[in-house]
Amino acid sequence: MFRTHTCGELRLSDTGRHVILSGWVQRIRDKGSLIWIDLRDRYGITQLMLEEGKTTPALIEQVRQLGREFVIRVEGLVVERISKNPQLATGDIEIEPHSIELLNKSKLPPFTIEDMTDGGEELRMKYRYLDLRRNPLKENLLLRHKLALETRTYLDALGFIEIETPYLIKSTPEGARDFVVPSRMNPGEFYALPQSPQTFKQLLMVSGFDRYFQIVRCFRDEDLRADRQPEFTQIDCEMAFVEQDEILNTFEGMVRFLFKKVKGIDIEPFIHMDYAAAMRLYGTDKPDLRFGMSFVELTDLAQGKGFGVFDGAELVVGINASGCASFSRKQIDALTDFVKRPQIGAKGLFYVRYNEDGSLKSSADKFFSQHDLQQWVERCDAKPGDLLLILSGATHTTLKQLNELRLEMGNLLGLRDPNHFKPLWVTDFPLLEWDEETQRFYAMHHPFTSPNQKDIPMLDTNPAEVRANAYDMVINGVEIGGGSIRIHNRQLQKKMFELLGFTDEEAQQQFGFLMNAFEYGAPPHGGIALGFDRLTALLAGFDSIRDFIAFPKNNSGRDVMIDSPSAIAPQQLAELQLEIRKISLP
Amino acid sequence: MFRTHTCGELRLSDTGRHVILSGWVQRIRDKGSLIWIDLRDRYGITQLMLEEGKTTPALIEQVRQLGREFVIRVEGLVVERISKNPQLATGDIEIEPHSIELLNKSKLPPFTIEDMTDGGEELRMKYRYLDLRRNPLKENLLLRHKLALETRTYLDALGFIEIETPYLIKSTPEGARDFVVPSRMNPGEFYALPQSPQTFKQLLMVSGFDRYFQIVRCFRDEDLRADRQPEFTQIDCEMAFVEQDEILNTFEGMVRFLFKKVKGIDIEPFIHMDYAAAMRLYGTDKPDLRFGMSFVELTDLAQGKGFGVFDGAELVVGINASGCASFSRKQIDALTDFVKRPQIGAKGLFYVRYNEDGSLKSSADKFFSQHDLQQWVERCDAKPGDLLLILSGATHTTLKQLNELRLEMGNLLGLRDPNHFKPLWVTDFPLLEWDEETQRFYAMHHPFTSPNQKDIPMLDTNPAEVRANAYDMVINGVEIGGGSIRIHNRQLQKKMFELLGFTDEEAQQQFGFLMNAFEYGAPPHGGIALGFDRLTALLAGFDSIRDFIAFPKNNSGRDVMIDSPSAIAPQQLAELQLEIRKISLP
Repeated sequence: MFRTHTCGELRLSDTGRHVILSGWVQRIRDKGSLIWIDLRDRYGITQLMLEEGKTTPALIEQVRQLGREFVIRVEGLVVERISKNPQLATGDIEIEPHSIELLNKSKLPPFTIEDMTDGGEELRMKYRYLDLRRNPLKENLLLRHKLALETRTYLDALGFIEIETPYLIKSTPEGARDFVVPSRMNPGEFYALPQSPQTFKQLLMVSGFDRYFQIVRCFRDEDLRADRQPEFTQIDCEMAFVEQDEILNTFEGMVRFLFKKVKGIDIEPFIHMDYAAAMRLYGTDKPDLRFGMSFVELTDLAQGKGFGVFDGAELVVGINASGCASFSRKQIDALTDFVKRPQIGAKGLFYVRYNEDGSLKSSADKFFSQHDLQQWVERCDAKPGDLLLILSGATHTTLKQLNELRLEMGNLLGLRDPNHFKPLWVTDFPLLEWDEETQRFYAMHHPFTSPNQKDIPMLDTNPAEVRANAYDMVINGVEIGGGSIRIHNRQLQKKMFELLGFTDEEAQQQFGFLMNAFEYGAPPHGGIALGFDRLTALLAGFDSIRDFIAFPKNNSGRDVMIDSPSAIAPQQLAELQLEIRKISLP
Repeated sequence: MFRTHTCGELRLSDTGRHVILSGWVQRIRDKGSLIWIDLRDRYGITQLMLEEGKTTPALIEQVRQLGREFVIRVEGLVVERISKNPQLATGDIEIEPHSIELLNKSKLPPFTIEDMTDGGEELRMKYRYLDLRRNPLKENLLLRHKLALETRTYLDALGFIEIETPYLIKSTPEGARDFVVPSRMNPGEFYALPQSPQTFKQLLMVSGFDRYFQIVRCFRDEDLRADRQPEFTQIDCEMAFVEQDEILNTFEGMVRFLFKKVKGIDIEPFIHMDYAAAMRLYGTDKPDLRFGMSFVELTDLAQGKGFGVFDGAELVVGINASGCASFSRKQIDALTDFVKRPQIGAKGLFYVRYNEDGSLKSSADKFFSQHDLQQWVERCDAKPGDLLLILSGATHTTLKQLNELRLEMGNLLGLRDPNHFKPLWVTDFPLLEWDEETQRFYAMHHPFTSPNQKDIPMLDTNPAEVRANAYDMVINGVEIGGGSIRIHNRQLQKKMFELLGFTDEEAQQQFGFLMNAFEYGAPPHGGIALGFDRLTALLAGFDSIRDFIAFPKNNSGRDVMIDSPSAIAPQQLAELQLEIRKISLP
């Protein structure tokens, strides 16, 4: 037997027991006549104590051969500690070992196994199995496990059933790029890995399973950005015989339940905001509502005063940075540099300082009178001591730039506390997005999203204005998930594919099975998918998902630990009837 | 709102309520002045009743336009039925509709949506979404959901944590054939889909997560047999600081818990049998213990009597078919034909009939006296009325043949009741298997399985005799899963790869990350993986797994519903730098 107890388990009441523990040597303190060892496992740390004269010389000699991360099995007696450690759950006791068995040696780890490690990113990825020994990563995976379990508990209680959908499916050119899997039994043909189980969950609604969910891996072969992974996990859900409100209530309920269960906090009810308002007020479809500074349009007030920058702009729009009139010239210059960074691309930043004495100072005083500026601060609801920050230019671009500035101000002013949660639903997304480059519409959500019933007549006359029954869940400026009411009618689905530029043949070849299914009594249905990696990170108060995934890939899609992807044997290629053709793409 | 209640919910106490239901038209009975409609959803069936004179003519006219599988929304009044239907949970009431809204039409389904359908296999696969509407399939998926949930409950309570491992991993030539995934970002390189998360769960043990599980999809590109799927689901588990007994007890406990929770039955404690005994007594490593007829060796009694067939055989072995002395000549001929089928390949079947009067009759009476045969029946523990069935030949082949005959006898005599469960652990498998064709050893379980400590010295002298710390869970002759204590020592792992014919370089290139991990304090560990599809089918009393998977593939690995695998766009191939080379393999 390797252990009678874990290293996090023994208490004062266990004093006098003979126990067996197994674990890793976290630390050895050798004071000559006294030696202490911290023995660690997943559950905690227990101190071993050896004393010259009391412990046999052989055992002391053996202990002196141990090193960090050695794995040992210890038999010994639980005794009360003289100097207790209240930081440690087991800090009231220690073990006097009778015997120690070396289970495995360890080389010196390439970085220290401590909460704050000295390992760089690449090194920690290569030795991920050692990085996962550290408490913060261990806690992240425990949290993830708990979240998944509670998600299932909540959904099961509401009659949702988890149904596994296939991972080897069919490639479709719509949407992001698929990972494909060559079929040996059908040479020249390929499966694709799912970007989501979308069509399958819709078919399950046609089958009558009216409440489906799945915590499921999804795959996207995209050029990876900082916090994207080629494989990621989704809480995927679908309901039949529902309207949008019931879906929103159900999943607002789920997120509130998870915060309560896992973090013990009651988060606020979700704010509802339509897409148009989110864009107008925050310049983004995922506003961070932990702080105010919503946008105020100033175009009418700003134009016609001879200031060329504003007069030539489609939009002049500002935010009120409350209490920031005291910003120094240097601070304002830094903000100007921020918005002029190529990633943001504004030409400049205009400000109005509302001094404590009621006077107003702007960065273009030549053009604007105190009376002019007074109208601005009134519209912005500013008080003495506040600072207006104003951008101008083409509408869409300027809104995006001001969103970046607003978030930067939130960061500077410490208004984005990761332990304060501000959830919202963004609704009424446009159905379609026009792409200038390819001169066609793309589905903003996906081709299965239902247009708003009221807007259906506009599909023919003004498709760009048609709203969708689509919604996103946003918490603290992070898109946690999104969904929609789906099309369940063959004709409407066909129409949608037409708008997206599919020929009838292409639509039938790629999605014929779904359109056929719609002819056999498809119920009204809709659903949602939440990013599970991101939800877990958010709950823990982190931005990056990488440390919430046991074995993530790096930004080139590589697993540097197992060294994958890698070459395969010529025989494997031959069986698949594939040849690698080393060409450079344009 | 689409519904206030489901179609399985209303009871006598709901009489007088105005309700809204939505569902599918299961059946319409039109008796002229009275029309009944069975409205179906996932939860049950509720009867709607329309009556000329009472119901408006317009509504009656509307109802006459409905057909099977149309989707409708009904508002109406709950009334007590005059003739109640005790077969139906809602059989005390019916609905008098005020209004009916057609939500979607349905074409006539290609087969009937009833418990016993008229659809053939291919048709049902093509219209899987309709087949899943049938009760038996719906119940199968509900059972599967419940089993997964209870599995998680059990393991979580024991401190196991579910950790998701990657699906895009690295191809290794050992074991079955991998599905591979070309990497666009690393042209010419491939990921592989996991055949199991084996190495990752071992790394998690190195990380200290001491109790891991995952309900996880696995992939094998094998030529499909009747009941194999290219993707399948596994309950995958691993534990650190354990010995074999603790693993067996934990997962015996899990299976007993699942049977209790899901079927409400207490199954018997697992029998333990070593591999050698299973082969000797049943000719298989997965014996069906719902019935006896264990093998009895008769070689010594059968030889030396001048019967050439036996004298030239390595093994003469029989089973006692209790009470079968009354089998007719025709029945015995049929058994002879059975064992002579090419799939089984015996040359003939020898029998000894122990008549009720105590006389003995064999199929080679010329060579064996009553006294000879008396010794045989004694050894077989046979009584008057019994029948011995005997095969002979090379040991391994003969045991396999007699296993088939024994199972066939079990079928004929009705001894294999699918609702009677007889679980066992088969232990002490050989570590290695010699393959004549490739003239090398293969790992019987996998290359990470630890040899039995006692047999380690034989690794150099007699590797074929080395036993492994490996075990299979077998219920009713079905292998539900298997596992082993793993190697956790770099030197022993290296030795194992040598025995399997790996060069040092190959071992390092393919499994270097694991062997390196063993040098940083790897704890003793072991685990198990259970086939979740098969476990679900077994619990439901079925042999085939196909109807316990929502969207299975056919025997050519095709999903005939979505028509996958399929050709991909030339642009996709170009991005992957791949060319299809249509060659025929030898």
